[in-house]
Amino acid sequence: MSETPMPTARTRVVREAHRAVYDRETIYRILDEGFLCHVGFAMDGQPFVIPTSYGRKDDSLYIHGSAASRMLRQMKEGMPVCVTVTLLDGLVLARSVFNHSMNYRSVVVLGNAVLVEDASEKLEALRILSEHIIPGRWEDARQPNERELKQTSVLRVPIEEFSAKVRTGPPIDDAEDLSFPTWAGVIPLEMKVGHPIDDPHSDPKLEPKRAVPGYASGYTRIRQ
Amino acid sequence: MSETPMPTARTRVVREAHRAVYDRETIYRILDEGFLCHVGFAMDGQPFVIPTSYGRKDDSLYIHGSAASRMLRQMKEGMPVCVTVTLLDGLVLARSVFNHSMNYRSVVVLGNAVLVEDASEKLEALRILSEHIIPGRWEDARQPNERELKQTSVLRVPIEEFSAKVRTGPPIDDAEDLSFPTWAGVIPLEMKVGHPIDDPHSDPKLEPKRAVPGYASGYTRIRQ
Repeated sequence: MSETPMPTARTRVVREAHRAVYDRETIYRILDEGFLCHVGFAMDGQPFVIPTSYGRKDDSLYIHGSAASRMLRQMKEGMPVCVTVTLLDGLVLARSVFNHSMNYRSVVVLGNAVLVEDASEKLEALRILSEHIIPGRWEDARQPNERELKQTSVLRVPIEEFSAKVRTGPPIDDAEDLSFPTWAGVIPLEMKVGHPIDDPHSDPKLEPKRAVPGYASGYTRIRQ
Repeated sequence: MSETPMPTARTRVVREAHRAVYDRETIYRILDEGFLCHVGFAMDGQPFVIPTSYGRKDDSLYIHGSAASRMLRQMKEGMPVCVTVTLLDGLVLARSVFNHSMNYRSVVVLGNAVLVEDASEKLEALRILSEHIIPGRWEDARQPNERELKQTSVLRVPIEEFSAKVRTGPPIDDAEDLSFPTWAGVIPLEMKVGHPIDDPHSDPKLEPKRAVPGYASGYTRIRQ
């Protein structure tokens, strides 16, 4: 694949350009920590933004299922989409309201979403999606049958045109505000994983109580 | 204001319609718990989705600043946008891969974003934004001056056309899968608020160490 020069006019970060990141390594690290994206598409000039899960393998993002429904009704040959992933790391309280900010890492991917029609690629894409969201689950769960595969639509978005924005660290106040009499700093935010909750539909008369698997009890998005 | 009948053809939830919610009370509760939205807009058929903070007051959403930059360059009279807010509550592990899901609450607002040009409305919109994100901060911080107000753009999006989708609770497996030998249940997810971190730019020789204010140490998105 020939590499698209980064950034393009469409992905160049306009505001706060010093926070822009265009290297694949950083972008893939963000995409791999996240699993929820917001997919944008336009119909007759009206944009729609739908939250959905995604998976990444190499230079492709995969999304599937219900979230894509409005898209899928008008898609055959590929349609322009924007896939945005945002990880929120904190609220930044400067002394001035103007310099308040957020710490975050976000990725924007522009591309043409293509329907995955080949049966084996589709199954593999679903495995990639599942393993992206909950590594280890695919082998443990009842995998899709023919009927379910027919009901599922999978889209592939090539990661060719992209940018990221990253803000970290403390507030940056103007020098003349440093003596303003108020607290300043960062309120850290992160995703908290709770204790897994057993499905109440499990019937202890029919089956033994099953142990929570390690990929659920030790669930984390931190990737090494 | 005449109420737009909900849902419109554009906001009707197509897939999993039983998860659709159209009442303002539920939608405002979701909008008030969140503060990060993904704003979609289209330029020449290409959608863009940008993460940014927002505030709500009555039937209006306000967004501001850098996130709107690409939009602002082409906006005067109002442009169609989609503002989506998603709160993620958990991963739902069914016995079948097909019935895996997420617990979430999401709101989609379609509307024309309008630039707020009146100076006093703009200042009030910034106060609403600030108080939405960190209630109590506005009075404590150094408020915007003329120069900063000029550098800031504020958009108002009327909440007229909207829908929400909500999923809660355990997995829903097909009856024939209930005996499949794997654990099933929910991994709860929520936003974790960490201990506030003092700005290292504070100079203890110039000023006393300031106590972390209650709105930072007790920060929460849970609204009563």
